[in-house]
Amino acid sequence: MFESAELGHKIDKKAFNEEVPRLRAALLETQLELLQKAAFPVIILISGLDGAGKGETINILHEWMDPRFIMTCAFAAPSGDEREYPFMWRFWHALPPRGRVGIFSGSWYSEPIARQVADDQPDEALSQHMDQINRFEAMLVNEGALILKFWFHLPKDGQRKRLKALEKDPRTAWRVTKESWARTKTYDKLQQTAGHVLRVTNTPWAPWIVVEGTDDRYRSLTVGKIILDAMRKRFAETLDQNFPVAPPITLKTTDSLDVLTALDLTKKLEKDDYKTQLAKWQGRLSELARHPAFARHALILAFEGMDAAGKGGAIRRITAALDARQYQIVPIAAPTEEERVQPYLWRFWRHVPHVGRITIFDRTWYGRVLVERVEEFCSNADWLRAYAEINDFENELYDDGVIVIKFWLQISAQEQLRRFKEREKVEFKRFKITEEDWRNREKSKDYHTAVCDMVDRTSTGKSPWILIEAEDKNYARIRVLSAVCERLETILNAPEARKRQR
Amino acid sequence: MFESAELGHKIDKKAFNEEVPRLRAALLETQLELLQKAAFPVIILISGLDGAGKGETINILHEWMDPRFIMTCAFAAPSGDEREYPFMWRFWHALPPRGRVGIFSGSWYSEPIARQVADDQPDEALSQHMDQINRFEAMLVNEGALILKFWFHLPKDGQRKRLKALEKDPRTAWRVTKESWARTKTYDKLQQTAGHVLRVTNTPWAPWIVVEGTDDRYRSLTVGKIILDAMRKRFAETLDQNFPVAPPITLKTTDSLDVLTALDLTKKLEKDDYKTQLAKWQGRLSELARHPAFARHALILAFEGMDAAGKGGAIRRITAALDARQYQIVPIAAPTEEERVQPYLWRFWRHVPHVGRITIFDRTWYGRVLVERVEEFCSNADWLRAYAEINDFENELYDDGVIVIKFWLQISAQEQLRRFKEREKVEFKRFKITEEDWRNREKSKDYHTAVCDMVDRTSTGKSPWILIEAEDKNYARIRVLSAVCERLETILNAPEARKRQR
Repeated sequence: MFESAELGHKIDKKAFNEEVPRLRAALLETQLELLQKAAFPVIILISGLDGAGKGETINILHEWMDPRFIMTCAFAAPSGDEREYPFMWRFWHALPPRGRVGIFSGSWYSEPIARQVADDQPDEALSQHMDQINRFEAMLVNEGALILKFWFHLPKDGQRKRLKALEKDPRTAWRVTKESWARTKTYDKLQQTAGHVLRVTNTPWAPWIVVEGTDDRYRSLTVGKIILDAMRKRFAETLDQNFPVAPPITLKTTDSLDVLTALDLTKKLEKDDYKTQLAKWQGRLSELARHPAFARHALILAFEGMDAAGKGGAIRRITAALDARQYQIVPIAAPTEEERVQPYLWRFWRHVPHVGRITIFDRTWYGRVLVERVEEFCSNADWLRAYAEINDFENELYDDGVIVIKFWLQISAQEQLRRFKEREKVEFKRFKITEEDWRNREKSKDYHTAVCDMVDRTSTGKSPWILIEAEDKNYARIRVLSAVCERLETILNAPEARKRQR
Repeated sequence: MFESAELGHKIDKKAFNEEVPRLRAALLETQLELLQKAAFPVIILISGLDGAGKGETINILHEWMDPRFIMTCAFAAPSGDEREYPFMWRFWHALPPRGRVGIFSGSWYSEPIARQVADDQPDEALSQHMDQINRFEAMLVNEGALILKFWFHLPKDGQRKRLKALEKDPRTAWRVTKESWARTKTYDKLQQTAGHVLRVTNTPWAPWIVVEGTDDRYRSLTVGKIILDAMRKRFAETLDQNFPVAPPITLKTTDSLDVLTALDLTKKLEKDDYKTQLAKWQGRLSELARHPAFARHALILAFEGMDAAGKGGAIRRITAALDARQYQIVPIAAPTEEERVQPYLWRFWRHVPHVGRITIFDRTWYGRVLVERVEEFCSNADWLRAYAEINDFENELYDDGVIVIKFWLQISAQEQLRRFKEREKVEFKRFKITEEDWRNREKSKDYHTAVCDMVDRTSTGKSPWILIEAEDKNYARIRVLSAVCERLETILNAPEARKRQR
């Protein structure tokens, strides 16, 4: 992986001074085109050995481009607060929006590599983590991002020489810390680990670029040119997404049986029975939310269902059992301006709860494979890849201790109509039925198929779909409450410790 | 302050059950009107004694209103990360946008009261802090917020009785902690402190409402009715801002001398001299940014100036001396959707740096008293009150260790015209001159007056305006750099420790 970066690359001063002005002008022009078109986000990871010029390169990029539109984030080990969220949380929040350049000094690779060098994780953990990173980066690229991953390399004796030289110069001496020297001692182990990590994450959509760090001029010029070139190529690409995508293949059963029609919508609960059960399950939920093990987890409740299926009512029966300071309800409406220039999962990332807390989503990221699919708000390619992306997202949450419980509330077309009419009559002011609600009804077959596909493709062991017969409100509410309790009991009483750090 | 809340208020079950359904319906209706109109934010502070029903009341409010549009935040002592920002930072970020209800369990009052009870701050510190809070709340109210501050009171023996009763019931026992009992020991001291704090912050725009907490039904009903009443009254108020505001009085000097015309725009720096000085000051700045005392401060550089005054160029000469991982440049454009439903300072609060870091604003909160005043984007009342609000904001930053250095870059009308024409010719693509730039020129007299007023009213000892003769770019850049260095040196080398906690 590092062979080409040990050859002693060098650029002399004259050649450098000739090239730089042209490169700067071109970089600036391309950056401003990026900004004006809000074309795509550019994510640049700067990593590599101590003394290989990471800081210097970042500074040069700020000098060569317009620093007002560069977001640079330095990631050291996560702080106390950051450890209360999933591993990726702080990176999610630092992603540049479309039109901007984000430079990451330290990244999602730093901790896994450091841990591996310190030898405190099994190989499978690393390998699984790299797999997740590959899929995460693929998602970003599919969402439009340009990802450039730089690794600055130095030969073994070269590193010691560079560090000594930096230490001698009073302008750069501060860059060399005790830790820099300490890390030179693990040079071989780091090379081996980094080599492995770089190879397995050297994907076509987000390849690694290994640059020799010995000569400042060579390193800066190389990085600058690669960034310029990559941005230009990205602009040149026809941006239409008409690459061949297999037409969506849906399971067409030859009978009328599917996961939704299989539900028995006649299920009912009488009022007295409902009251007894409500008290029982709310009491249990209230205790579970204060279970000692819950303080090491977090909970996401995800509600989906056709209009008027009773999501709001079910949610209120849950929150009645909780302390209001422990949960947050997020009703999902159209994305805001700031959300539209980010990957579609970004607006859900914002609300991922930290440990000990609960977020309830009233409609969710499944909008991608439901309304966006049916209404053709996104391409086939987009919603087809969303199943895997969503599974990855939920898996990661699970591995980081966030329990995801997701519900589909099903009612019949007749019952929906009855509820619409009732709302129009009785509570016309509060729950106005919009034109859209009526229109959605016409597409009910498409939605039906979309829901069946969704359940088949995203119901996983870690995060199964729970389908609720919601024709009778009482029955549905108890089913939801009891399902939440049972899932929590299983996980919170499990003997295995909660995984947090990878 | 607490007399009326020791009378043993009670509501019997029958009266309660009769009143509640009406109250709920009315609350819900009003809340939805609030939401649909995105009318104003409702900020509810819930504070008071242990056992007085804070948690229970918050839960009831969630039950009675639509919890999806309530944002409830519980504030305990600030975490490690939160302590790296100014005191108000975590509250700024929790404010509800227009149309929503925000409930604060614990607030900006909690820490000052707790400290005073623990006796570890001088009375003047508390008094100054309360003064700041009053002005902060006034600003929120002027920005449209409805603030309701509840204090739940219990008589001394009443508190012990309530805590015992809560402990007996297995459903509420968890609410009583060791700390609750510990705090009963300081009942008198707390009463005395809270009484004082409530009195001095009992302003007409954000009054305290003291509610007796002994009887759950009385407390819930009282709080619910007050909230309903306050929201309704707020809707009923004519929302036009035509209350009598003194017409803006501006210092009209009888000669042509003012802070801007007094500047000597012929000041120049020759190229060689510039190069020497640039190297010198950049070297010093680079060292200052790594000064040990800087790790306990943060730095905001605020740049204002007419179009083409050279803000961008000056900023780049500063950043060239810094490590790119230490600073962030925030170019101020039109506010986004999420920013428009918040107070005008909110979009700057977002970018306040944490300790050891630097934020550079390319245009700032002074837009309120410059462009918004001149272009009449806000009312006279709005920009007139902004001077004091901005002074408060900057004072608070200073007290919390954030150094604010602000620059006005001044050029003559002729020089501006020359630069516009040059840009149009030479770099037409990169820096397109917009219609707006030309239009702004026509209002130059109004801008001139606005700048003079701004300097007079917001140049404080803690955060003085630095006016830069910017006709010659070299001269301006060195002036800016040297001013930053000198200000930093004065503060960082001062013997007094940085104040952080109040």
